[in-house]
Amino acid sequence: MNNPLIKLSQRIGYSFNDESLVQLALTHRSCGNKNNERLEFLGDSIVNFVIAEALYRKFPQAKEGQLSRLRADMVRGTTLAEIAREFELGEFLQLGSGELKSGGHNRESILADVVEAIIGAIYLDSGMAVANEQILNWYESRLAGLTLDAVIKDAKTRLQEHLQKSKHRLPKYEVTEIFGQAHDQKFKVSCWVEKLPEITVGIGSSRRFAEQSAAEKALKALGVE
Amino acid sequence: MNNPLIKLSQRIGYSFNDESLVQLALTHRSCGNKNNERLEFLGDSIVNFVIAEALYRKFPQAKEGQLSRLRADMVRGTTLAEIAREFELGEFLQLGSGELKSGGHNRESILADVVEAIIGAIYLDSGMAVANEQILNWYESRLAGLTLDAVIKDAKTRLQEHLQKSKHRLPKYEVTEIFGQAHDQKFKVSCWVEKLPEITVGIGSSRRFAEQSAAEKALKALGVE
Repeated sequence: MNNPLIKLSQRIGYSFNDESLVQLALTHRSCGNKNNERLEFLGDSIVNFVIAEALYRKFPQAKEGQLSRLRADMVRGTTLAEIAREFELGEFLQLGSGELKSGGHNRESILADVVEAIIGAIYLDSGMAVANEQILNWYESRLAGLTLDAVIKDAKTRLQEHLQKSKHRLPKYEVTEIFGQAHDQKFKVSCWVEKLPEITVGIGSSRRFAEQSAAEKALKALGVE
Repeated sequence: MNNPLIKLSQRIGYSFNDESLVQLALTHRSCGNKNNERLEFLGDSIVNFVIAEALYRKFPQAKEGQLSRLRADMVRGTTLAEIAREFELGEFLQLGSGELKSGGHNRESILADVVEAIIGAIYLDSGMAVANEQILNWYESRLAGLTLDAVIKDAKTRLQEHLQKSKHRLPKYEVTEIFGQAHDQKFKVSCWVEKLPEITVGIGSSRRFAEQSAAEKALKALGVE
């Protein structure tokens, strides 16, 4: 194995049996027909699955819509490019002369694609169990830092943005009930939205959580989720 | 195992170790909070990966864009619902009363979701190797019937539709050269598109294939692919 590939193996924590796979994974389409796009196609589906399962198991209470949003965050180009930058993958890329001149080594989409292509290459080299382990290692801190709150919190913002975009009035939230024991209070919040025939109602352990839940239901009623 | 589940096992060719998984996979959200949406989320990512790999291996010459389109065809709701109908899954569904009355047993989106949820359930029950085998069995005839031509052929149609939608003139194709031996002739076709600064050129073993290839390049130049 040549020197750059040894360095790459150390960074990503995986050493290829078949060097030609990683060479291909690092080759951008600007180099010609033999490039990493097919590996990227394969790797994309693998990272989607691995993250889907990780989220499914980590959040047994999460609804499908929440899991989908969390996954979209995890597998979007920005996140994949971040991973590429952590491994400093840019220096290993094979780019055509045009991309070289225009700074392709640091372009987000190129970096994201390379991460997916490397995942595809690891899968072909060593199978799903190893690819799974690698992906979970690379995502370890990101997955550990995830909370469902981060998703739920977002519903109010999404509702507001949706209504602003469609030129409707902003939603109105109102606490309609507080119940339960002092150490375990629940808040009931109603959410009024101009476009909806009925208010939606959320219940939560804080006013904010209840509002988020009501906003989530309004989004669903609007078909936005 | 109760009778309906035995019948279902025989139809799909898989018998669950954990019956509660298949029960959940058959339960539509209209029945309440404990429903098949999470399994569908998981199963969706699995069928995406399994079909991606099958196409990757079946078509070693295909480009990423072609693989993506073939997969989109394979995993879209209509195809999944077809599989559900082949297994007559409708009769096993658990639906809430509203969906029951409005014919949910035969609704395409519900049927498609159930197929994905069953795949998710098989994966949790027996792991990836078994889920992979099941999916490939279910898709056997569809995958066997696939040809890359089917994708390439489509480029002219897609180009025409794109230009019509954007109110541009239709493309013009012209054979500019025929070369090669009599038993191995090649056609060179140029494709003129109003929006593009340059014509695109396709080469193929028939006029039609050359046109499709030129159309494909025009689509790429338009950023449509």
